[in-house]
Amino acid sequence: MSDSTSQLNPRLRGMSGFIQRRRELPVTAYVEGILSGDRVMLSRAITLIESTLPAHREKAIQIIDACMPHRVSSFRVGITGPPGVGKSTFIEVLGQLAGSHGRRLAVLAVDPSSMVSQGSILGDKTRMERLSAADYAYIRPSPAGSTLGGVAGMTRETIILCEAAGYDLLFVETVGVGQSELAVHNMVDFFLLLLLPGAGDELQGIKRGIVEMADLLVVNKADGDGAAAAMRACVAYRNAIHLFPARENGWETAVNTCSAATGAGIPEIWHQLMAFQEHTLANGSFADRRRMQVLSWLEDSVQSSLRMHFNRHPMVKALRPELEALILSGKISPVLAAERLLKAYRGEA
Amino acid sequence: MSDSTSQLNPRLRGMSGFIQRRRELPVTAYVEGILSGDRVMLSRAITLIESTLPAHREKAIQIIDACMPHRVSSFRVGITGPPGVGKSTFIEVLGQLAGSHGRRLAVLAVDPSSMVSQGSILGDKTRMERLSAADYAYIRPSPAGSTLGGVAGMTRETIILCEAAGYDLLFVETVGVGQSELAVHNMVDFFLLLLLPGAGDELQGIKRGIVEMADLLVVNKADGDGAAAAMRACVAYRNAIHLFPARENGWETAVNTCSAATGAGIPEIWHQLMAFQEHTLANGSFADRRRMQVLSWLEDSVQSSLRMHFNRHPMVKALRPELEALILSGKISPVLAAERLLKAYRGEA
Repeated sequence: MSDSTSQLNPRLRGMSGFIQRRRELPVTAYVEGILSGDRVMLSRAITLIESTLPAHREKAIQIIDACMPHRVSSFRVGITGPPGVGKSTFIEVLGQLAGSHGRRLAVLAVDPSSMVSQGSILGDKTRMERLSAADYAYIRPSPAGSTLGGVAGMTRETIILCEAAGYDLLFVETVGVGQSELAVHNMVDFFLLLLLPGAGDELQGIKRGIVEMADLLVVNKADGDGAAAAMRACVAYRNAIHLFPARENGWETAVNTCSAATGAGIPEIWHQLMAFQEHTLANGSFADRRRMQVLSWLEDSVQSSLRMHFNRHPMVKALRPELEALILSGKISPVLAAERLLKAYRGEA
Repeated sequence: MSDSTSQLNPRLRGMSGFIQRRRELPVTAYVEGILSGDRVMLSRAITLIESTLPAHREKAIQIIDACMPHRVSSFRVGITGPPGVGKSTFIEVLGQLAGSHGRRLAVLAVDPSSMVSQGSILGDKTRMERLSAADYAYIRPSPAGSTLGGVAGMTRETIILCEAAGYDLLFVETVGVGQSELAVHNMVDFFLLLLLPGAGDELQGIKRGIVEMADLLVVNKADGDGAAAAMRACVAYRNAIHLFPARENGWETAVNTCSAATGAGIPEIWHQLMAFQEHTLANGSFADRRRMQVLSWLEDSVQSSLRMHFNRHPMVKALRPELEALILSGKISPVLAAERLLKAYRGEA
């Protein structure tokens, strides 16, 4: 059950004739492998999703499409928090509890800043030793990508493959320092924010607005010397959360404490997840959100392809720098510059 | 100094031969009028910006472009808050104080949901009686528009014309219930959130995340019976704000109370505005934010034109409904549907 070859740096992978040959599989082979729960095939299909080669892209789209109707019902959970909050340990512990409840778990990551060579989040699988070894869990590190849109799109696609492979619980980890939270929020059913005890200065790494999106706030490291501080932070967050309006889905954001190290509070968090799913399935907001998300995925796909096609256009590339300079010096308006770029794109200039 | 003709419903305007003729002015006439501070010409140019006719659009772009290099240095302030918080009275009072400091003030509004016939915000100018009559102030109601992008784009363009007309202080009002705050945040230097006393239930109308964007929170109606509640709300917000991280520009969001009815607290708010401008001009973040905003305006202009061109394409329009139905029933993936739409757009299908 090793998928280590697919974890290799893409450049290294290209150098191996063996792996090169392995790639020439037909779409049906990937799809059958995924549907039968073959993790190696799942990993190789995800690698195709992450590839920038047009031929790979075409194949990836066919695989995704073939997997669509075969997905299991799932619950998608976004997990974020500042660096050092202990996300990996938390996922390891909560994931094991999920496994004990018979769930099959896929752990993915969205981190637009990561490059394979710089060490992506989840890249060090030894941080989740038990989960990596568990047969109910599948862990996939963050893909290398230069744009958030690219990485987020890949993650959405990867979710589909995992669900077709029978994973009915998805954890999507994000690093809690940037725009990626919004992208993840738009692809999950539930958004969990992990916090450090001693609210305040420790939150420097969290972007304003992320707290607002959370369906559950969890103050981690509520153990030993941190227990009292975690409880104080919990109370402070409860008061702060109380100031914000009720959510459209009727769910009240709670603030829990836990210790991923001792396991304290983890069952309560699992209970929150299950209660949320039950609540939103019952009132229809679960299905509503999924529908909204899948149509916004279409919109995003169209937009990003359009934008890519536009930005790669030779006339657009040639014109843009001088137009930007003119805008910044206040000589022309952005709206005139946009007109000129569009005329160039449509071959009218 | 009446600009009442330009405030008419566009449909009515089209029926008048006189007004129709007046529109045939050359671009230079508009520009000279704006630069000389002629408010009627300013209003008529803004009406061109708000028009959907291609000929008007072309003229509007030329006017905006000619105005670009002639703008005065300005301070742009976004003002939002829930319905009933007293935005108009607040703007009336703060605007008069600005006038007494020698500032020339333009008050604009962003409200994508408003239609002229339904009564837009700022539409009832009698709510700002003194400001409407003051020669240092120019008030422009929200344009009717079906999309936020459209209305936001018009407002950005209107800001340029107002600055070319010599208005060095801009208030951009938004209604505090939707996405428009983010758009306004991206076109102003300072974002002020007005709140009602008795924090909590009264905030139902405010979207999560708006509080986070504010450079200043102001609890209004701190007078009479509301004074004690306003002070309690102020303290609660100060505690909540404290939990969030410092901003990139080094500015600490304050929470003030005021009474637009009695004028209490208004000078302190003016002081906050001026202190913010001084602070951000000194550390360079003012210029940085403006640069970022003007490039994001270019990007938005390009995107919205591209999207419009795409969505109006007959093949795209013909294909989209069936593709969306297939996506919602889980039969095809959004990414394949996007590919098909793009092929249709490029004439490949």
